[in-house]
Amino acid sequence: MGNEGSKQQVLEFLRNHQGEYVSGEEMSRILDISRTAIWKHIQALRLEGYEIEAQTRRGYRLVSIPDCFYPDEVASGLKTSWLGRTLYYYDEVGSTNQIAKELADDGAQEGTVVITECQTGGRGRRGRTWLSPKGKGIWFSVIFRPRIATAQAPQITLMAAVAVTAAIRDETGLPAGIKWPNDILIGNRKVCGILTEIKAEIEAINYVVVGIGLNVNLEETEFSPEVRPIATSLLLELNRPVKRLPLFQRILYRLEQGYELWQEEGFAPIQKAWKEANVTLGREVQINSWREVFKGVALDIDAEGALLVKGEGNDIRRFSSGEVSLRPIN
Amino acid sequence: MGNEGSKQQVLEFLRNHQGEYVSGEEMSRILDISRTAIWKHIQALRLEGYEIEAQTRRGYRLVSIPDCFYPDEVASGLKTSWLGRTLYYYDEVGSTNQIAKELADDGAQEGTVVITECQTGGRGRRGRTWLSPKGKGIWFSVIFRPRIATAQAPQITLMAAVAVTAAIRDETGLPAGIKWPNDILIGNRKVCGILTEIKAEIEAINYVVVGIGLNVNLEETEFSPEVRPIATSLLLELNRPVKRLPLFQRILYRLEQGYELWQEEGFAPIQKAWKEANVTLGREVQINSWREVFKGVALDIDAEGALLVKGEGNDIRRFSSGEVSLRPIN
Repeated sequence: MGNEGSKQQVLEFLRNHQGEYVSGEEMSRILDISRTAIWKHIQALRLEGYEIEAQTRRGYRLVSIPDCFYPDEVASGLKTSWLGRTLYYYDEVGSTNQIAKELADDGAQEGTVVITECQTGGRGRRGRTWLSPKGKGIWFSVIFRPRIATAQAPQITLMAAVAVTAAIRDETGLPAGIKWPNDILIGNRKVCGILTEIKAEIEAINYVVVGIGLNVNLEETEFSPEVRPIATSLLLELNRPVKRLPLFQRILYRLEQGYELWQEEGFAPIQKAWKEANVTLGREVQINSWREVFKGVALDIDAEGALLVKGEGNDIRRFSSGEVSLRPIN
Repeated sequence: MGNEGSKQQVLEFLRNHQGEYVSGEEMSRILDISRTAIWKHIQALRLEGYEIEAQTRRGYRLVSIPDCFYPDEVASGLKTSWLGRTLYYYDEVGSTNQIAKELADDGAQEGTVVITECQTGGRGRRGRTWLSPKGKGIWFSVIFRPRIATAQAPQITLMAAVAVTAAIRDETGLPAGIKWPNDILIGNRKVCGILTEIKAEIEAINYVVVGIGLNVNLEETEFSPEVRPIATSLLLELNRPVKRLPLFQRILYRLEQGYELWQEEGFAPIQKAWKEANVTLGREVQINSWREVFKGVALDIDAEGALLVKGEGNDIRRFSSGEVSLRPIN
């Protein structure tokens, strides 16, 4: 077994005795690794962010694990059966969607996840940049290969918005809500964006890459002045930092659940869950589509996920894409 | 001017005097090319398939041009303003869609066309192979960059089916008709298939590659035994070969017209033209979609291009994709 393998053994041993002291001698004997090697591995783990206490006579104690996305840490306690079980982790990348698309082009299987601590070229919808500072958010992409026609592709982004909203609520209790189609807001400010990219024939999807950017521990000053009035983070909403790792694991779990439900039962249960989590319907909206700007009241989403808006002359219009502005509730 | 350039000058000169004899001496003087060089260019043009008669004292006469897709021949007499004005021509390729996708990934502009005499790896929908023997068909792909949401992408394939059907009717008078969504039939046999591939975000298309395979001069024995009962060619329907070049030019013209109409006025005029050219509505059909096999009567296509089918219990179902079998009319 290589050096990296025996380091993992030491970490595993400490994790299995979390909160307790374990002696270097005992580890050395049980794992069949020299005490010098154990000492070196402990130093390396500390550099990776593992807090490990050492006391003479009592030995070593794992106090905390780092709040980042080391594949072993993600896998440990992950409740999914396939989603995220293949995980590519990077300290820094241009864009996780770009890497995921290249992996998908090379045949990567459904459920493959690419996650990074930092994106230098993160992108949002309509070619906008997406701020992704190091260690402050959950910036990742998932490869799906759904058995649907291309016209149904928008459904997967609604599913993803429902899943992430549920995970935020599960882990933080914050009242996250969805602005059609898939922005996640807390109190009118955007906390999460989803960028979906597709390679397809008309009748069948080759792959969908769903890119998710969730602002976890960004401070107000980290947002650009233009974005500051309309963006938020979980830290800003809670006035405390949030552990990213369990939240990420929860998101993966919710995504797997939602995807399986969608593929097995179709869009109806997703539509229902989306409506329960949305903050768009019943509101006055302005929608910018390719062809026009339209004002009215958001009535409903239809069986395809398109937004139905009633205009001033009571005409009802259907939008399968577009950017919605919500008029504040007085 | 290089050798290829002066060969083009000779061809241009002959073309401008098509049907007439022009003396080598006159060409030599007017084009400022030696008589030996002119003789060499005539030999080269003959090898490319140009039929050029030579008579002592009278000179040369262009009798016919080859029926293949040399870019200069395609450009000569092409009525489009942008579609096909950038043309990649290959004697043989794996698949024109594959090349077009690579060109589109590298930024090729809208309207770029890839055409070949022969595909060794031609593909149809659902991963099927598409027979594309040398010189016998029109095997080509067009790059489009429409300003639409991904959910509207199926509309472009209906537009393409309408355009190709119209071009076949224009050039041959044959009663070509469309089987939903975009197979072109003559008398229940398929003469043309369309394979559309997409790279997109949910809200915006990056590009669409529309691949078109039209069986022009295939003999019955060139089809595989399995395909023979359901496939046809223009030659088989007319009992004579058809010139591919003017037909190809006509298709490009009809595609440009249809695309501009669609982008300017939306799907309504395409839907109307599709209905006029279809052989599906009102017929008993069986439709294989991802989820099921459904039997009923094809009623209509809706404003998105989806097929509405009335089942046996009078329930009306909507299909945005699927493969239709038509029950023969008794």
